[in-house]
Amino acid sequence: MTPLKQRIISPEVNEPSPGMFSNCLRIGDFVYISGQTAALREKDVGEESVEYAQARTIFEKIQSLMSAAGGKMDDIAKLTIFLTDISKRADIWKARKEFFSGDFPTCSMVQVSALASPDMRVEIEAWAHLGSGARVEEG
Amino acid sequence: MTPLKQRIISPEVNEPSPGMFSNCLRIGDFVYISGQTAALREKDVGEESVEYAQARTIFEKIQSLMSAAGGKMDDIAKLTIFLTDISKRADIWKARKEFFSGDFPTCSMVQVSALASPDMRVEIEAWAHLGSGARVEEG
Amino acid sequence: MTPLKQRIISPEVNEPSPGMFSNCLRIGDFVYISGQTAALREKDVGEESVEYAQARTIFEKIQSLMSAAGGKMDDIAKLTIFLTDISKRADIWKARKEFFSGDFPTCSMVQVSALASPDMRVEIEAWAHLGSGARVEEG
Repeated sequence: MTPLKQRIISPEVNEPSPGMFSNCLRIGDFVYISGQTAALREKDVGEESVEYAQARTIFEKIQSLMSAAGGKMDDIAKLTIFLTDISKRADIWKARKEFFSGDFPTCSMVQVSALASPDMRVEIEAWAHLGSGARVEEG
Repeated sequence: MTPLKQRIISPEVNEPSPGMFSNCLRIGDFVYISGQTAALREKDVGEESVEYAQARTIFEKIQSLMSAAGGKMDDIAKLTIFLTDISKRADIWKARKEFFSGDFPTCSMVQVSALASPDMRVEIEAWAHLGSGARVEEG
Repeated sequence: MTPLKQRIISPEVNEPSPGMFSNCLRIGDFVYISGQTAALREKDVGEESVEYAQARTIFEKIQSLMSAAGGKMDDIAKLTIFLTDISKRADIWKARKEFFSGDFPTCSMVQVSALASPDMRVEIEAWAHLGSGARVEEG
């Protein structure tokens, strides 16, 4: 019997208004994470590129949701990365490398013509299977 | 052993030509629904916005397919919404609210530069787990 | 218990650099394939359309990865096709028909404003359930 879906909430990720969408749903060992964004602007990020800063913040949100779901980043099987300027893709790669280890998720990355707000340059969604990442060595 | 895929057909949703794609496949408790569209134009929708009317028709198609698969809208875990003008996103939200209850699906929404026909302004795909939505109260 | 993810490698598909992404992951009977591309140009394809040639090469890569994962094309449940000029979609359909039989995968197809390289006109990702395609008749 399919388990009921559970809504996963992290205190570190803003919840959408009721009647909109869920940031994260867990169904058995499956975890779905909605496209996350971070509307950071030049003035918010100092000397870093905006794309890198947005992607890092997005991966922090995804990490918080994965943790709230009982999992870890390396349980993620698939990412879709939508960005508004694909020439900045190396900035996304740089952020991604800080959050995964071993065999990275599968991924598609495409340039879209706009995201929900003009300040958003990156949106990242994720699929995960809890327990599928390499077992963590216990000290 | 993985169940064989079953093609799900609804009398209310046009089937694509053979050799193209399936509108809906069920594999065990998983349901995949292809990106649905509805090429309604201004003259077709009266005083409603075209985006709202297209999204509502699309959700009706998805509902028909979910029903044909033995499920319900609240079994849907993930939507991807592609639209051609993201400034109209509130029209999509309005339609979505009419079809879901409780914890809404996860969702990504991005603006693409075109869909298959110039009259199409919205395309919505869905992933579902049959039985994962809240149990329906029997009267 | 969820099986550990396995990275699937095909000798016929270039592996990304370490720390980037996996072309293909298998988790139990699930297979995820990253958005595949093929930067073929007019001079590479003779009289064929570039879109058809790219799509055919992409489906060959997906077929190699599915085979390396222990599956077959008809185990694929869902494709997402991103292309840079949707008016060329019949070229994609033509290539797709050469690789699937029976009930085709579900599919979404949208026009994006750019892929990772200007020579790339098509990117295709896939989800599969091993064993879900019709059993192959043994002679």
